[in-house]
This record gives sequence, C-alpha cells and structure tokens, in this order.
Amino acid sequence: MKPLIGIIMGSDSDLPVMAKAAEVLEEYGVEYSMKILSAHRTPEETMEFAKTAEENGYKVLIAGAGMAAHLPGVLASHTILPVIGVPISGSALAGQDALLSMVQMPPGIPVATVAMNGAKNAAILSLQILALTESNLKTELKNARQKMKKDLSAKNKDLAKSGYQKYLHEKLGRRGV
Amino acid sequence: MKPLIGIIMGSDSDLPVMAKAAEVLEEYGVEYSMKILSAHRTPEETMEFAKTAEENGYKVLIAGAGMAAHLPGVLASHTILPVIGVPISGSALAGQDALLSMVQMPPGIPVATVAMNGAKNAAILSLQILALTESNLKTELKNARQKMKKDLSAKNKDLAKSGYQKYLHEKLGRRGV
Amino acid sequence: MKPLIGIIMGSDSDLPVMAKAAEVLEEYGVEYSMKILSAHRTPEETMEFAKTAEENGYKVLIAGAGMAAHLPGVLASHTILPVIGVPISGSALAGQDALLSMVQMPPGIPVATVAMNGAKNAAILSLQILALTESNLKTELKNARQKMKKDLSAKNKDLAKSGYQKYLHEKLGRRGV
Amino acid sequence: MKPLIGIIMGSDSDLPVMAKAAEVLEEYGVEYSMKILSAHRTPEETMEFAKTAEENGYKVLIAGAGMAAHLPGVLASHTILPVIGVPISGSALAGQDALLSMVQMPPGIPVATVAMNGAKNAAILSLQILALTESNLKTELKNARQKMKKDLSAKNKDLAKSGYQKYLHEKLGRRGV
Amino acid sequence: MKPLIGIIMGSDSDLPVMAKAAEVLEEYGVEYSMKILSAHRTPEETMEFAKTAEENGYKVLIAGAGMAAHLPGVLASHTILPVIGVPISGSALAGQDALLSMVQMPPGIPVATVAMNGAKNAAILSLQILALTESNLKTELKNARQKMKKDLSAKNKDLAKSGYQKYLHEKLGRRGV
Amino acid sequence: MKPLIGIIMGSDSDLPVMAKAAEVLEEYGVEYSMKILSAHRTPEETMEFAKTAEENGYKVLIAGAGMAAHLPGVLASHTILPVIGVPISGSALAGQDALLSMVQMPPGIPVATVAMNGAKNAAILSLQILALTESNLKTELKNARQKMKKDLSAKNKDLAKSGYQKYLHEKLGRRGV
Amino acid sequence: MKPLIGIIMGSDSDLPVMAKAAEVLEEYGVEYSMKILSAHRTPEETMEFAKTAEENGYKVLIAGAGMAAHLPGVLASHTILPVIGVPISGSALAGQDALLSMVQMPPGIPVATVAMNGAKNAAILSLQILALTESNLKTELKNARQKMKKDLSAKNKDLAKSGYQKYLHEKLGRRGV
Amino acid sequence: MKPLIGIIMGSDSDLPVMAKAAEVLEEYGVEYSMKILSAHRTPEETMEFAKTAEENGYKVLIAGAGMAAHLPGVLASHTILPVIGVPISGSALAGQDALLSMVQMPPGIPVATVAMNGAKNAAILSLQILALTESNLKTELKNARQKMKKDLSAKNKDLAKSGYQKYLHEKLGRRGV
Repeated sequence: MKPLIGIIMGSDSDLPVMAKAAEVLEEYGVEYSMKILSAHRTPEETMEFAKTAEENGYKVLIAGAGMAAHLPGVLASHTILPVIGVPISGSALAGQDALLSMVQMPPGIPVATVAMNGAKNAAILSLQILALTESNLKTELKNARQKMKKDLSAKNKDLAKSGYQKYLHEKLGRRGV
Repeated sequence: MKPLIGIIMGSDSDLPVMAKAAEVLEEYGVEYSMKILSAHRTPEETMEFAKTAEENGYKVLIAGAGMAAHLPGVLASHTILPVIGVPISGSALAGQDALLSMVQMPPGIPVATVAMNGAKNAAILSLQILALTESNLKTELKNARQKMKKDLSAKNKDLAKSGYQKYLHEKLGRRGV
Repeated sequence: MKPLIGIIMGSDSDLPVMAKAAEVLEEYGVEYSMKILSAHRTPEETMEFAKTAEENGYKVLIAGAGMAAHLPGVLASHTILPVIGVPISGSALAGQDALLSMVQMPPGIPVATVAMNGAKNAAILSLQILALTESNLKTELKNARQKMKKDLSAKNKDLAKSGYQKYLHEKLGRRGV
Repeated sequence: MKPLIGIIMGSDSDLPVMAKAAEVLEEYGVEYSMKILSAHRTPEETMEFAKTAEENGYKVLIAGAGMAAHLPGVLASHTILPVIGVPISGSALAGQDALLSMVQMPPGIPVATVAMNGAKNAAILSLQILALTESNLKTELKNARQKMKKDLSAKNKDLAKSGYQKYLHEKLGRRGV
Repeated sequence: MKPLIGIIMGSDSDLPVMAKAAEVLEEYGVEYSMKILSAHRTPEETMEFAKTAEENGYKVLIAGAGMAAHLPGVLASHTILPVIGVPISGSALAGQDALLSMVQMPPGIPVATVAMNGAKNAAILSLQILALTESNLKTELKNARQKMKKDLSAKNKDLAKSGYQKYLHEKLGRRGV
Repeated sequence: MKPLIGIIMGSDSDLPVMAKAAEVLEEYGVEYSMKILSAHRTPEETMEFAKTAEENGYKVLIAGAGMAAHLPGVLASHTILPVIGVPISGSALAGQDALLSMVQMPPGIPVATVAMNGAKNAAILSLQILALTESNLKTELKNARQKMKKDLSAKNKDLAKSGYQKYLHEKLGRRGV
Repeated sequence: MKPLIGIIMGSDSDLPVMAKAAEVLEEYGVEYSMKILSAHRTPEETMEFAKTAEENGYKVLIAGAGMAAHLPGVLASHTILPVIGVPISGSALAGQDALLSMVQMPPGIPVATVAMNGAKNAAILSLQILALTESNLKTELKNARQKMKKDLSAKNKDLAKSGYQKYLHEKLGRRGV
Repeated sequence: MKPLIGIIMGSDSDLPVMAKAAEVLEEYGVEYSMKILSAHRTPEETMEFAKTAEENGYKVLIAGAGMAAHLPGVLASHTILPVIGVPISGSALAGQDALLSMVQMPPGIPVATVAMNGAKNAAILSLQILALTESNLKTELKNARQKMKKDLSAKNKDLAKSGYQKYLHEKLGRRGV
C-alpha cells in the first residue's frame, strides 16, 4: 500500500524525536514513509521528493529539523500538500532557532508548526486532516480522546485515593518529597 | 451553503489581522463564517461552537488571538477538526506570548501554528487541507503558486531593467536612498 | 472538613513541583484537595470543577502547568475565585512558554502568577488571602516570617563565625573552593 | 471611610497605566488610596507604608513599576497582605525586565503578578479577593462577567450581521482592508 | 562587464535595506547584479541562479531576507561560492527570526551572517574577499578605513571644540537636551 | 583644571543619550572630557586614550555604545581605572545586543554596566566613586538623595490632594483617562 | 582591622559563587566582611547594614543574588557607597531574571552590574575603585594584568609548540577530538 | 610553508570547539596557525597579530570566543582580511551573549558570523573564500559536497531498509523507543 504520510527529517540525529510520529501512525494503521532529506545537504533529492509527493499519493508531509530548520519550508515551496513542521531542540539555543525558522514563513507558503519536539502532535494533526474524509479514522481519533480522558481521570482518582506522597512514591518512583 | 471554514478571534481588536483570512477564502470562493469567541470571556459559547463544529459542517477552524492566546488550544480540546492558530502581535511583548501560548500545546491536542499575524497563511493552509479532496481547489492553489512566481519574476525583471534607484522611487514610492 | 484550597495540575508529571504547595498547606493545617485536571485533555471535568468550586467551599485555586499552560486561565474563566498560576519549567523552553501563557491574561480574567516552579509561594499567597479573615492564620504567617528572619540571621552568624571556607565545607557539603 | 486597596506606583510616569486600576475600583465603589512610593528613591516611606498597611485597614496592595521593578517585592517583604504586581512596559526592553523582576520572587515572599500593564486585572483580582467575604461584591463580579459575555456576544452578532468589512469600517473606524 | 557580486533579496520590500549594499559596491566600482529571488515563492529560479552563479562569473553572493529567512541558506546549498546573509528586521519579532534562521546553518553549508539590516557591511565583507586577489581594492579598502578614522577624529575634535550642547544643536539638529 | 571623568562614546549618534552624563557632572561641578572614540573605527586612538587616561588624571571612564558594544571592554583592557558601560538601545534588537556585549566581560577585566541608556546613572556612579575620597561630593550626593525624596514625596502629596484624574490632566498633560 | 569591602548575598546557596570574590580580596590582602542578608527575608537587617556601611568604614559593597535579585538595588537605596551587583544564574531562567533585576535600576540609584556569576570581576572592580587612592593596590593590579598576559602568552606558546591535539590531551585532559 | 588561515581563540577553554576548524583545514591540506589571543587580556599581542596578519601571508582569520565575545571584532578593526566569528556557547546565557557580541558589528567593520560553536563551518567558509582563486580547492569542496550527499542518501536508504526501530537500535545505539 502506498504511504499517505511522509515523515521527513534533516538528519538521522533527529530520528529519536521523529520516531514518535511513526509510532502514532502505526498505532492507527496509517501508511507512512520515513526519509532523511536535508534542505541543505541533499537539496535536489529534497525538491524531487516534494515535487512528486502528491502524485505519489502522499496527503500530508511532516518535517522535523533543528537549528536553521529550513526543511519544512523548502518542502512547502515545492508542493501544495499541507506541511507540518516539528522544531527540534538539540541546539545550544534550545530550539528557539528551529521554532522561528519554521513558524515565521512568508505569505503564500504556510508551514503548520507544532510544539518543540512535538512529533507526536504532528502525527495526530496529520490524522485529523486525513480524518476529514475517512470516517473510521474520525471514530478512532474520538475514541483516543475518550481514552485520554479516562486515563487522566483514573490518575486523578488515584491521586485522590493515595494522596500525593504515596502517588509520588508508587506511581512516579520518587520518594516522599 | 454551509461554511467549511470557521475564522474565530478572541476580540474584535483582532479583526484587522483576521480579515486577511476572510479575503483569501472569498478569493477562492470557499464558504466561511467569522466569529468573535473568547476562551476566557465567553468560554461556554466557545466550547459549544467547537463541540458542534464538525456536525455543522466545518472542516477546519482558524483561530487568532493575542497575549495568553488560549483560543485555538481551547477550541482544539473540544473537536478533532484541525485547528490553525494565528498568534497576534499587539501586546507589549510583540506577540512572543501569543506564539508560545499556541505552539507549545501538550501531547494529544495539536494546534497548527502559523506566523505572527499570519492570517493569510492560515487561510491558505486551510485551503491546502480542503484541496486534498477537492481537485478544483487543488488546481486553483497551483495556479496561485504559478501566479506568485510570475509576479515575483516580473518584479525581478523590473528591478533589473530600471535599476534599484528608479525602482525604489517608482515602485516603492521612496526617494533614491 | 471541606477543602479551602484547590491544588490543580495539568499532568501528574507536575506533581513533584506542586507537592510543595501541599506541604505548605499541611504545615499550616489548611484543608486542600489536589487534582489532575487538564485544560486540553479533560476540559469538561476542568470546567465542571471550576464552576462548582465556589459552592463547594473553595476559596482559592492554585494551578500549575507547563508548556502552553492554559490551565489557570481556563479555571479563571469559569469562576470568580482568585486563581494562582504556577508556571512549570519542564519544557525545552525552560518554562518561558508557561510563564507567558499564564501571566499575559486578557482584561477581565486575571491569573495571579508566581515564580517558575513557585508552588511554595503559591501556597503562601493563598494563605495570605485566607488570613485576611482568619486572625489565627495571620499570626502564624507573621510567626513564619519571624522564623525565616531568625533562620537567615543564624546562617549569617554562622558564616561570620566559621568563615566561608568552613561554611562551604560543613554546611553546604562542598570542599573549599 | 478607610481605603481597602492601596494602589502604589514607583513614579508618576506610571500613572497613566495605574489609573485604570483606580477606575475599576471606583466602578465597584471600593475605597482605595493611590500613592507614589519608590523602592529606591523613598525606601523608608515605602517600608513605613507597607509595615502599617494592615493596621491602617488595607486588605490588598497593588504595585506597578517598570525596569528593575522592585516595588511590589519590597512592599511584600514588610507585610503579609497579598501584594499584586503590575509590570510596566515603558523601558527599552518592553517590560521584560519589570515582568521578571516581579514574578521571580524567592520562596517565602510571593508577589501575585498580572499581565504587562495589566492594572485593570490587578484591580479585578483585588476585588476577587475582597469578594471572598463580601457577598455583594461577589454578585457584582458575577454580573460583570455576565455583562462581559453579553457585550462580546453582541459584538459577535454584529459581526455576523454586518460582515467584516462593514464592521471594520463602522465599529473600528477602519476602511475596508 | 560581468557582475562579480550578486545581491539577492527575497522580496522587493527588502530593497530599501539591500540598496545600501549596491551603493557601497558602486562606490568601489565593482560590478554587481541585483535580483529578487524567493526561496519559497520562486524556488526553481533561485536554485538555477545559485547553481550557475559560479560559471556566470560571480564570486560572492549577498542575500537579504526577513522572517523565516531561508534565502541565503538555500543559495548556499547549491553553490560553493561564499554566501553572506543579511537578516532583515521588518517582522513583529524585530528580526530575531531572520537572524537565527540565517546564522544557525548546519555543519557543511555555512552562511556568513552580518548584523541586522547590515547590507553595508555585507558589501564591505564581499569587497574584503575580492581584495584578497585584487591589490587595487585592497588599497581602496585601506584608504576607506583611513578616511573613516579621519572622519571620526574630526567629529571628536568638533565635539571637543563646540561642547556637547552646541554639537547636539548644530550637527545633530537637536535642541539642547 | 584637568578632567576627572572621561565620557566616551562610539559614535556621535550616541550623544543624545550620553549628554545626560555630562549634565549630571556639570551639576556637581566635576570636570570631565567628552570624546568620540570607536573600538572598531579608531582602535589606536581608543587604545592610546585608555593607556594614558590614568596619567592624564582621569579617575573613572564612562563609555556608551550600541550594537556589538565593545567600547567599554576595549577601554577596560588598557587601563585599571574603573570603566562604566552604558548600553545604548538604538538597534533593531532594542539594545539587548549592547547590554550583553558589555556586561558579560570575561574574568579579569570588569565593566560596571548600568541600565539601557542609563547615562545619568553612570555619572552618578562615577560621583559615588569619587566621593569615597571627597567629602564635599559625599555631602552633595546625600543632599541629592534627600532632594529626590522630597520631590517624590511632594508628588505623592500632590496626587493625594488632586486625585489621579486632575493629576493626569494638570501634571502629565493628559486628558482624564 | 575594619573591612573595606562588604560581600553580601541573598542566600547561602549563593556562597559557592560569591566565595570567588572573597578569594580575590584575600589574594590582595584587602579586608572584607561576608554576609547573608536578604532584601525580602531580612529587610530591616539589610537596610540597617546599608545605612551604617559608610560609617562602619566600608568603601564598596558587592551583592550577589538570583531570581528577582533586588538585593543590590535595595542596598543602593540606603547608601551612596558604590554597589556592585552579581547576577546569579541558578534559576530556571538561567539568570536572565537576575541580570535584568539588577542592571535596569531607575535614574538616581545605580548598581554597577557585572557578568552572570561574575563574583571574581566584582572583586576586581572593587579593587580598581580602592586603587584610585591606594598606590600599592594600583601596582598590584597592574602586576596582575602583566601576569595574566604572561600566563596567556605562555599558553599560546604551549599550544604552538605541542599542537592542538596534544594540548587538548595533556593540558585539558581530553582525548584527541 | 606559511599559514593561510589563522584560527584564534580567546581562551584555551575554547579549544575543544575550535579544534574542529583545525581538523577541517588539515583534511584539505591547508596551512593554518592556531593561537590563543584575548581581546581583553592580551590586547596588544592581539592587535599586533591582526595588524601584521596580511603581510604574514594570512588570507582569512577565524576567531572563536564566548560571553562578551569581542575577539573577532577587535581583530577586524585592525585588518581588512575577512574575519569569521564563531560564537561559543559555554556561558550561563547559552552563547546568546557571544552571538550578539559578534554579529552586531557597526557599519564599516564586518564580522562574518557562523552558527553557535560552528567552528567546522567557519573552516569551510574560509576554504570557500580561498577556493575563489584555487581551482584545486574548488574541486575538493565540490567533491566534499558530493560525498555529503552520498552519505546522507546512504543513510536515507538504510533507514528505508531497516525501519526506524532497527536503525535507532543499530546505527544510533538506542533501544527501540
């Protein structure tokens, strides 16, 4: 089956962050491909990928990069598919460089930027986009929200029941403060 | 016809920025509604809107806000429709507060953040999402890209022909530097 | 006895910070409840809690959150009880996102923001508010101030007596610089 | 009648901002006094005011200052009354200096910090504190919230009715974008 | 004669800043061309220019851009000519976005970044590079340094002679402070 | 009489700020000289001045500069006289560049940095240093502090008497808010 | 013998940084006292110390503090002795809070701010001030500068002789990169 | 053979970063010298080096420094050779001080600033400058670019082949996420 989502990263050092996007897509059974393409080191390959992404069946591109993070912007300049940017925080500037390099795109070529290292949210956003026309996915996303609520409510109850010291100790593995 | 895109803003003082999103959508003939809903001042109305957005036919929500810009995040917490955030720069902190309040959403509830005051790009991003299943829109977006290229190339030629001093004077209305 | 202070946090990962607020309240013998409620993941439960907080006897709410820290603002939008915000510094941006997301609330809905990870001060501020009408608490807070003075003066004398090298070694467990 | 709220500012250049706090308190008929006291230029007078504030009947102090904005912290060090800080943005650093100088208070001496130039919210927060024991005020604050909702809903309807171009023109006094 | 220096900008709104680079080059009689090429809006044209720049006789490229300022990085990814980046400060973020988007290039593809709006210095840097093999230019640059010294020394003497009040009044057109 | 204080600035565009230092010194009748010396454009003259400053009778040097504000650091590297730095805020970065370039001096070569555009405080600090051995100056500085207190107390009383609306109108020349 | 320099810190957690100031003063044989005085926790003791510092023979005060670092400003408000501020970087905000809280003092009350954690430079600056009237100290400071030069020149020669790989290995204890 | 490139650093603590520049130059067989010269601690030696650099055969200077990183600016003020600045991130402010101290040079004296700790890119930039007149170097730089492309493409293929979990495990030495 053809991948619907492309997960692109500028360097394999971004993989530990971007892997979280892949995990989410696998959980939902959505096909994806994962690629290392650099806006600066492999610019033609990157352009080629972006230009043919639509005809190759991609629906959404997710691009993670650090420092002067041009990757999502460069992809976006060669396709009208929605491009989601994940700023990665590895640099000395704690990712503020990557965040601003992604989010401040000029008029005409948007990049949908998510949180620092927010690869999981990038995947969920891509699923929300796909879900506009796939009702199964819509249902699954709603179920996931329900599950998230239940999980948090359960934690809330646990905390109420055990008290914060026991909770810290037993659930978070910390000694009483 | 039912609106496909919701343009929401936290205060009518955001309207001069957010109006640019409406203009883009009108240009493409895509139905939208525009609303003033505040995460803090009209929280129930905001929640109600978000909860019923999907069944009311909305496909994408665009939300602009300044300062502690919770609006897109609050909308996103009540719908699985994609929510696009537009940080607005009116505050003393030049919009850095709004940018961080939007983009740094926690795992599970993404907001697709665009540039400071980037209402035009928010609209284009929403069209890129709709275009995934509307081939007319796809064509129009590609044409717009071509037009953008032509316009810029024309300016480039103008500059080459007239030289920067004349260009500054005649096109930008500035005297020779 | 009914709790007077609500200590709310957006995730159980905030508990190690927020536990300090509980410790302070316990020290003063003031009833509190502690809850995990997320503005984004359990928005209805959060709203419900805020809307009924007053009738349930709460006087002050303390809310800690990180990243796009909407929790105190969302609570404040549903109650006129004073809401104290504790920005939590876990993110790649060292909590600047949480600080600005809390403190920059729009006109009409204030959040009383304290220092990064300042759960202890949030608790003391809540006690200062309660003390306005409880003279016992007033006395205890004044005593605590006196104790704080004495403790610091004692350290000051220790330092004068032992000299900085011995103090570093014996009190702070460091070798002579 | 004795003032319940003290509105203090470090310089009369802060008055245009801090006047908004006075206006809010007048609207609610709550007694206040307004003073110019500088942590650095009149430190004894400032200390004297803070030390006697409680016995003089004050319940809450609101302090606005810019630059190295020590005023609310210095007041807080001499009283256990709640102190609300208003960072003022006049400096070359757009108030980031004032914000950090106020909010980052050390353990033991909190300052309840509100938004940059947020004198209005400081006043509302002081009223929320007083309202804990004054049911009339409680009712008035709730009414104000209701009015705020109605006002915003009315604007929302206006916008829906007139469309954004007319609204921009007629309500905001701007020409069509 | 063929241009040695390319002055590239992402938008004609950058021209008022970038014109200063052209002025400097004209002063030194060094051939240049000036172009509007956008990394995002005309990516192929930009790539084509960069790829052929060397064979077309260019020695140094100067690229100015604002916001997510990818232009110099994209040029640099397609040529081994030195690329000088000029961050432009027009955005709501005062150019910090452009600065970080330029300077933080990944290993392998450097951009020589100069000051915010520093088009004049970009031109001088390009001349310093050319001067390595053109002794005339070397002499001229040294003469310019001497002239700069003389001009500043003259101002220094003027100030000493007239006193600061007269200097402010007569040279800077300000009234006595 | 020989000057005791040197007021140095990197460019005559800094004069409107640095003139305030001269005014303060004149008020106290302390001899000073004022010079335009650039760390980058007249480095030898700057070095020469710093190296001979002590033997020429200077006691303290005040240096104001903007952007990459190396001037006070360069002066300090050639003299053991105390050097006071005044960061100037003219740049696109609002002086944060100048502040960090001054204050973050390496171990061994301190620069005493004052507030952004704080030329007045630089002058007062230089007087406080001179006053250590000139009892007249000591008395004058104490009198100035007393006067400052009186002036502020007078404003405080004015405000109490006239109320904030009249004060805003009459003293600050603003209409009632 | 009476101390000439006061080294004050807001908390004993600042001692590891501030100890470096004491070491420098000891090296030069200059008497100092070291105290823990908090602007917020022991405000009267702090005020008392500052008010009597001059008559007790102090010449210069050095004050280190972190977070909302009011200590040097509060000392400065009660004395005309020069006050040197050392911002301490322990907070989540890496000391930017302390830096701005110190350096941005209002007109009339300067604090001579040095680098983050720059206790050594604070001590040297205090010696530079004392040296204005103590020629022995002047000579010693000049000798220290000479020694600093020699030490660095020696390192420079070492590096030239051994090459960077050996230098990294032998002098810095790192393996060849 | 005479060195063409000077690699200068302000302190031997910068050597671990600056060594990367030396490694690159060695790889290309380009002669360099490496020196420890401080703008503040050995200013005359630094000036002397810069003034004679051209006649000593240097073509480009690379200067790395942290904190108030004046070194590249001071070198640039004494030579018309291109000076490349490497901001070093060791300080409490994560190198933002060094970045701004370098990049924000005043008109007339540029410093070509590269990324935080970007010594490798500084070396490559210096080679790109030398390559303008040395065709061998030109070829080698182009080959290096080709190699960089091949390496990244190979990684891209590896990732496609092994999948991200195996790649994380085998190539990056991490367990499956």
